[in-house]
Amino acid sequence: MIVVRTVADLRAALRERRGGSIGLVPTMGALHEGHATLLRAARDTDETVVMTIFVNPAQFDEQSDLAAYPRTEDADLALAEAEGVDVVFAPETSEVYPDGFATTVSVGGAIAETLEGAERGRAHFDGVATVVTKLMLAALPDHAYFGAKDAQQVAVIRRFVADLGIPVTLVVCPTSRDADGLARSSRNTRLSPEERARALAIPHALQEVTDAAAAGIADTEALHARALATLEASGIRPEYVAFVDPLTFAPVSVVDGPVLVAIAARVGSTRLIDNTVLGGA
Amino acid sequence: MIVVRTVADLRAALRERRGGSIGLVPTMGALHEGHATLLRAARDTDETVVMTIFVNPAQFDEQSDLAAYPRTEDADLALAEAEGVDVVFAPETSEVYPDGFATTVSVGGAIAETLEGAERGRAHFDGVATVVTKLMLAALPDHAYFGAKDAQQVAVIRRFVADLGIPVTLVVCPTSRDADGLARSSRNTRLSPEERARALAIPHALQEVTDAAAAGIADTEALHARALATLEASGIRPEYVAFVDPLTFAPVSVVDGPVLVAIAARVGSTRLIDNTVLGGA
Repeated sequence: MIVVRTVADLRAALRERRGGSIGLVPTMGALHEGHATLLRAARDTDETVVMTIFVNPAQFDEQSDLAAYPRTEDADLALAEAEGVDVVFAPETSEVYPDGFATTVSVGGAIAETLEGAERGRAHFDGVATVVTKLMLAALPDHAYFGAKDAQQVAVIRRFVADLGIPVTLVVCPTSRDADGLARSSRNTRLSPEERARALAIPHALQEVTDAAAAGIADTEALHARALATLEASGIRPEYVAFVDPLTFAPVSVVDGPVLVAIAARVGSTRLIDNTVLGGA
Repeated sequence: MIVVRTVADLRAALRERRGGSIGLVPTMGALHEGHATLLRAARDTDETVVMTIFVNPAQFDEQSDLAAYPRTEDADLALAEAEGVDVVFAPETSEVYPDGFATTVSVGGAIAETLEGAERGRAHFDGVATVVTKLMLAALPDHAYFGAKDAQQVAVIRRFVADLGIPVTLVVCPTSRDADGLARSSRNTRLSPEERARALAIPHALQEVTDAAAAGIADTEALHARALATLEASGIRPEYVAFVDPLTFAPVSVVDGPVLVAIAARVGSTRLIDNTVLGGA
């Protein structure tokens, strides 16, 4: 496994590997089993696996969140090596955003402006879109792997990749969960044992909505009330429990096709998100 | 020469040509000798020459200007064939902007917000950046050719190509001029004979500024006054006569390095732009 810090070195490393397919797994480091799932999917499919580690300042709305974001490069590189990654691209911020940098890739509409876009500010998905565009153009992979946990991020990426015609195929892997159901997240390490126990209300609420929908309740307002009750029983007041079209993020009032149920909530000071899809993936 | 209408067909046409270098010449059609200069530069350098024809609605601030923009595809294809173009990509608007399209590539700062950006509105350069990104990603050329007449457009393109890391080298060709000095433009066909004669004041003003700077006048306010007098003597009130840094478009008050002199003016109802660089290219 080689580790490169510049786009030029990344391209040089990939030049001789273009005969076979290239898989890209973008990460912000602080790797956990969820990332390992993405790396294994890439390893199963592509001849060369490229992982990136870059904590992107442009997508953090709060400087305190950026400062607190866990940075564990040594452990990340060990995990990557164990998972058979070929090339790690771990640039400094100045390599990604040199002096004079002035370009933004921006997705408009509900897909980027509601839910996470509303809670985290307009700049969040602009930051995601801009850096993921850069990473894709640096590596020019055949496949790029993302986790379903970041459903809205995936929808935004799907949109700009199609709109700009970036020549890459997206692969979305199911959310990786601990045995008790909590979605894996780099932020989980910040939860106290008590907070972690309460956080289980989030996957429980999603499961309850899934069961209720399977039992024939199609009115999303009724489903919303059930989820809210489950969350509040654990003292969680969510930022949102949303029922939306998985591609456009337009609100949905009746479940009669695929509906994304997305939850965001702070447990203590840690912000968590999770989601599931009702009515078929 | 083959003509394709979709990105898929363009990519298929280029797939077998990637062994040699590919040159891209983006145009809005209505080809003239200035475009021919770009095509010849590409023909001299690249094994495959791709020309695009697309009148991009997103970069027109006035619907009347978009509607009036000359469309001459048969003549354009004949010129392209005569100049040895290999592939013409001439998509419909729906191919470039399908339903649901929601992505913008945007350059911030003086480079995109002053002069043409101010006169034509913020959306103008967003439209340019978005479509040129798409054309570059569709063709993935080694070189892309642009005319120096659109100096600010070139600066914007240079900026986002560097910022996003689009793997292409820009080639900027000198402004092509008629024998009497008028910069060639698709819009020149709209000038009446009387307007065309008056429009010569624009290159004359640029020449006068060049001569005055060569004679030692370095104060751009004094140079500005001379240009203005020349234009007004022909009844032309310019939208701007600007002295700026050629890369950043920051205003310059003293000529002690390369300075771009840019003029925009309406002659009758036709909007013309022209420019030159003082103090070394």
